[in-house]
Amino acid sequence: MAIGSIGLLHPGEMGAAVGGELVRAGHRVIWASRGRRPPSRTRAEAAGLVDVETIDALVQASDVIISLCPPHAALDVAKGVSPFRGIYLDANAISPATARQVADIVEHAGGEYVDGCVIGSPPTRDRATRLYLAGKGGPTVLDFFAGTSVQAAVVSSDPVAASALKMSYAAWSKGSAALLLAVRALAAAEGVLEPLLAAWQASELDLGPRSLQAGEWAAKKGWRWAGEMDEVAATFRSAGLPDGFHRAAAEMFARASGEAGVPADDTLPPLSTEGS
Amino acid sequence: MAIGSIGLLHPGEMGAAVGGELVRAGHRVIWASRGRRPPSRTRAEAAGLVDVETIDALVQASDVIISLCPPHAALDVAKGVSPFRGIYLDANAISPATARQVADIVEHAGGEYVDGCVIGSPPTRDRATRLYLAGKGGPTVLDFFAGTSVQAAVVSSDPVAASALKMSYAAWSKGSAALLLAVRALAAAEGVLEPLLAAWQASELDLGPRSLQAGEWAAKKGWRWAGEMDEVAATFRSAGLPDGFHRAAAEMFARASGEAGVPADDTLPPLSTEGS
Repeated sequence: MAIGSIGLLHPGEMGAAVGGELVRAGHRVIWASRGRRPPSRTRAEAAGLVDVETIDALVQASDVIISLCPPHAALDVAKGVSPFRGIYLDANAISPATARQVADIVEHAGGEYVDGCVIGSPPTRDRATRLYLAGKGGPTVLDFFAGTSVQAAVVSSDPVAASALKMSYAAWSKGSAALLLAVRALAAAEGVLEPLLAAWQASELDLGPRSLQAGEWAAKKGWRWAGEMDEVAATFRSAGLPDGFHRAAAEMFARASGEAGVPADDTLPPLSTEGS
Repeated sequence: MAIGSIGLLHPGEMGAAVGGELVRAGHRVIWASRGRRPPSRTRAEAAGLVDVETIDALVQASDVIISLCPPHAALDVAKGVSPFRGIYLDANAISPATARQVADIVEHAGGEYVDGCVIGSPPTRDRATRLYLAGKGGPTVLDFFAGTSVQAAVVSSDPVAASALKMSYAAWSKGSAALLLAVRALAAAEGVLEPLLAAWQASELDLGPRSLQAGEWAAKKGWRWAGEMDEVAATFRSAGLPDGFHRAAAEMFARASGEAGVPADDTLPPLSTEGS
């Protein structure tokens, strides 16, 4: 379909990879470099994104804006481009309630909100990532990704179903990693780590290696996953289900990233202190 | 080794099966039928246990007492046989702190506390179960099980290491089952269960069947697992780690068993209302 430019906020690892796929499909993808740090530029240039420097210029030039950022920044990103009257795809790991807030911001300004979520690692030519879409505009957005490594699918016409799906998926994928980390920490604290590893082996469970891997992920990405677990916890609470699993998961990830230090690149520095 | 009778409290599914293995190894195993319901008698008789009717008679006749009961009842069971001056094996799923309380009760009366835990389903001739032991008396108790389907092993001489091991093991085995239940409930509440099951399949994760199985287990055993998750949560709290995973797990299991109703048999009716 004939669209002009797609504005991408922001070229973190996932954003740059998804943007690169859109470029590969023939789209003009733009980004705004002002206030971003060098790794964003490196990724954006490698992906073939066009720098329009400012958010204002990006809003002016875009028919579609895609928000791909850490969960705690999703609202600020939406506020930062308002008013925008095109299609706004939020593909972040946010609760349905947060997604509704983003949708309100977009729709009150006359734009069209499309709900999305990404499941998988950043796409490459050889490795597909799944993009789930929801809401009336889902099929339109789906078409942009034809022939790319972004396998887009429409979940339903429910305006925030993709966010609900992401929360449910992450509730296990990252929640179980946090649980495993916590269990390993408990066994170590109680002096029974070796017997626990042996007992897992005796039960033919591969939890020793999995718990080590969870620790490596958490050290690298815990700073972002903590916010995602907060969104998941809020989703459970809204649904009348216990939120304790994911409040604890957020704490485990915050601890793990605190130990590992703040990430060196700017996958997303906050646009403001609000909401972060 | 030459021991007299082993008193078994109580012939629930696990207790009767472990008692039956001891009988098979040539030991005289006794139980007390007063106040128990018919399924206990059926199991005890099938396992070859000798009924001495009362707890007092059991305490008088036993050189060793084994406590196998739901976690919330472990302290009451220990109080109910005090004073007892033989070897007291607590093989329940209790926190190290609760195990220390049981040990205090036993040792103040002049008995010898041995810490234990069972990992696995009730043993049969063809299916082994693991019994982990800790404390100075571990090796003595280990010998009782020679040649049975109860594979006994000494974890360490730390007086409550077997309880710590059980808490760590159950923290994942049952905690992850509760998490999976909760995730499935969330997806259902948000109207995205079908997309979630499809997303798990697309990721080659067998979580659909596993989450169904978790629901079946929880409906059957949730009433007992809720107390076990409370013990696990307390263990995390004592170790300075977040207890939210397992407080939430306890809630999920309590809900699941509430929906399924109270179990029909008496795997353990409380000896008193205290601690239950």
